[in-house]
Amino acid sequence: MARTDIARRVYNHTWKLDPIVRSLLDTDFYKLLMLQMIWGMYPKVDATFSLINRTTSVRLADEIDEQELRDQLDHARTVRFSKKEMIWLAGNTFYGRKQIFEPEFLAWLADFRLPEYELHKRDGQYELEFPGPWMYTSMWEIPALAIINELRSRAAMKSFGPFALDVLYARAKAKMWAKTERLRALPDIRISDFGTRRRHSFLWQRWCVEALKEGIGDAFTGTSNVKLAMDTDLEALGTNAHELPMVLAALAKTDEELLRSPYKVLQDWQRYYGGNLLIVLPDAFGTASFLRDAPDWVADWTGFRPDSAPPIEGGERIIKWWRDRGKNPKDKLLIFSDGLDVDTIEETYRHFRGKVRMAFGWGTNLTNDFEDCAPTETDDLNAISLVCKVTEANGRPAVKLSDNPAKATGDKREIERYLKIFGEADARVEQPVFV
Amino acid sequence: MARTDIARRVYNHTWKLDPIVRSLLDTDFYKLLMLQMIWGMYPKVDATFSLINRTTSVRLADEIDEQELRDQLDHARTVRFSKKEMIWLAGNTFYGRKQIFEPEFLAWLADFRLPEYELHKRDGQYELEFPGPWMYTSMWEIPALAIINELRSRAAMKSFGPFALDVLYARAKAKMWAKTERLRALPDIRISDFGTRRRHSFLWQRWCVEALKEGIGDAFTGTSNVKLAMDTDLEALGTNAHELPMVLAALAKTDEELLRSPYKVLQDWQRYYGGNLLIVLPDAFGTASFLRDAPDWVADWTGFRPDSAPPIEGGERIIKWWRDRGKNPKDKLLIFSDGLDVDTIEETYRHFRGKVRMAFGWGTNLTNDFEDCAPTETDDLNAISLVCKVTEANGRPAVKLSDNPAKATGDKREIERYLKIFGEADARVEQPVFV
Repeated sequence: MARTDIARRVYNHTWKLDPIVRSLLDTDFYKLLMLQMIWGMYPKVDATFSLINRTTSVRLADEIDEQELRDQLDHARTVRFSKKEMIWLAGNTFYGRKQIFEPEFLAWLADFRLPEYELHKRDGQYELEFPGPWMYTSMWEIPALAIINELRSRAAMKSFGPFALDVLYARAKAKMWAKTERLRALPDIRISDFGTRRRHSFLWQRWCVEALKEGIGDAFTGTSNVKLAMDTDLEALGTNAHELPMVLAALAKTDEELLRSPYKVLQDWQRYYGGNLLIVLPDAFGTASFLRDAPDWVADWTGFRPDSAPPIEGGERIIKWWRDRGKNPKDKLLIFSDGLDVDTIEETYRHFRGKVRMAFGWGTNLTNDFEDCAPTETDDLNAISLVCKVTEANGRPAVKLSDNPAKATGDKREIERYLKIFGEADARVEQPVFV
Repeated sequence: MARTDIARRVYNHTWKLDPIVRSLLDTDFYKLLMLQMIWGMYPKVDATFSLINRTTSVRLADEIDEQELRDQLDHARTVRFSKKEMIWLAGNTFYGRKQIFEPEFLAWLADFRLPEYELHKRDGQYELEFPGPWMYTSMWEIPALAIINELRSRAAMKSFGPFALDVLYARAKAKMWAKTERLRALPDIRISDFGTRRRHSFLWQRWCVEALKEGIGDAFTGTSNVKLAMDTDLEALGTNAHELPMVLAALAKTDEELLRSPYKVLQDWQRYYGGNLLIVLPDAFGTASFLRDAPDWVADWTGFRPDSAPPIEGGERIIKWWRDRGKNPKDKLLIFSDGLDVDTIEETYRHFRGKVRMAFGWGTNLTNDFEDCAPTETDDLNAISLVCKVTEANGRPAVKLSDNPAKATGDKREIERYLKIFGEADARVEQPVFV
């Protein structure tokens, strides 16, 4: 019985590619929910997704080798849903509902592959774009981000010897476990993993998910990562994202239509999904204007996911809005998911406990917190604020305002036009975006 | 290429014994140095070594299975010096000196095996004794302690799942690495591993030694563990221990002879070793009386290893003694080795820096610090104060007074007799013994 598996060792030392994305389920669950709606209602719409690095001080094109990036993107394009995955999607219960995906949609999905990409370097950054039909390009968001973030981690660790790597991961594990111990102290808290896009690596995300399972037990309600949900028998979680109102707004032909687009999205959504999937994401063009103009039926939805306002202030605004419409906030759900870490989770939990149901979608600081973990100091393992946003729909510019001007995306003049139409520019609070 | 090596897995799950001691070199270097002297000068002396658990609150016989203990002790008795080990002992340079071991001694050592042991349970403790010729029983000290400490660790971890073990070692590594970072900040410090006897496990000691190599570089001067020194190309370090004055004192026929025995030991030692090996261990019967009665030539020795007095107080007393004898302490060496951790190392280092050469022999808190590392709270992984001391020589009781009455060993009436003869009882300072 050999101590060294010679075949494996030789394989490890001669391989060409360690694929980052090995499954099309290695994505966020909401992408599949949105995809079914896009496929059903907007199959002819084109939407371009573009990589946006908000941490401009990090020159991605200097850190990540272009050929390695192309190899990973090309590999992701070869991946298909496997039979096992298709059977699981068809047979699993999501949010308590069987057959959430229509057979026709699944039949189409069985042949799905990621479409082409366009990659250029400019000023030390990558210009990475995914043009084409929305129902294809939408699926690039998560794998593109996961690939770039993991390639960046790998580049940062290339010079590390085995001992440095050992210390790095030991410290990251110790740090992560200390977080679970703090969270365990909060009775009835509900936390889920939303960290796929920003993860240090797939294996590290999996470890963090296992740590939450072991560490906080039932308080860990699931993961947005469909593959991890399948592999570890967790709930797959997530509802909808900014791309829906952004595309519908871009397609609007009049200012009036633009103003109504955030509610049109909700109406579309409700045709497909109900119950706990009825979560409003109110901040695409500012939560204040969204609440001001919202039809009364929006108050019947299960909850809101404030995603760019400060959590306590943003949550209080929504609670007040519910009360004004005769709703009891205790029957309602707030899902917090913006730049959370244990401090903000604790603070938000303590503030809202007993006032409203709440859940925390924990992302970057769950799956990519390596600060002070490397044995020699480096910034290269710190997470950056990298997103992949829809920038164009049917040739028209797409825009996001958000509650935090630092998170706005899109053409400057178009942003100004949106600000005029939605108004309430002063209700938006500029905050630094760390992740 | 299988992902699981089936043969190895089956082997792992069916094995009978995971031996703790796999080499007779897996011991402290000073045992070999002392052994050569014992073999050369006292081959006819019998000396009984006995296990003493000073942490009486820990009931070792309840924690460790007797059969497992017997299996490990029996296995250790089957181990011989290998050819490679004998060649290394003969060919290596120790403390700058070639052929420190005489060919006749090595020829005898080649057939060495650990002698028989006597094991009984009493009141939840193990009575473990090694009676027989000193030149055989002496070699049991380190393996016996390493076996019991590692069996205790294993027992404590038996209920841990793979994730809990992962967190445990991650935290222990993070903790250890943080220590190396603090020590790295102390210029010109000299630290060595003295942690074999108290280690959590052999593999963990090896990791800690690697961590010091990586973390503090040249400031890490070596290890007392001969096997680790050989395997990792480190210096093997250590000089002599209390067993020498204890046995010689026990053999003394008159009070006068007893009083002279600590210096007789040094004279014997000097016949075999010189230079940096001329380190005085002054506290067997109290440092105050040792210094008071010491002949002048003792001040010519390279240094002292104060082993039970508080380090600063004990070191200052020796420095004063050197000065009184016209010696410049800057030419002298103090080796600290009693219950060190980073706090005490830093404090002692800062106090003596520039006044005297110094070195730190770091033991228990280097190789067995798992406090607050387990994911669920347990005391069972905390190190205990376990020693294996000579208790009898040629049928006469052996005694150690030490500078700390809590570390005294031996028959009570005999201790009183020694205290009368050596005097200076008030110079001894009672301190809690943690490790």
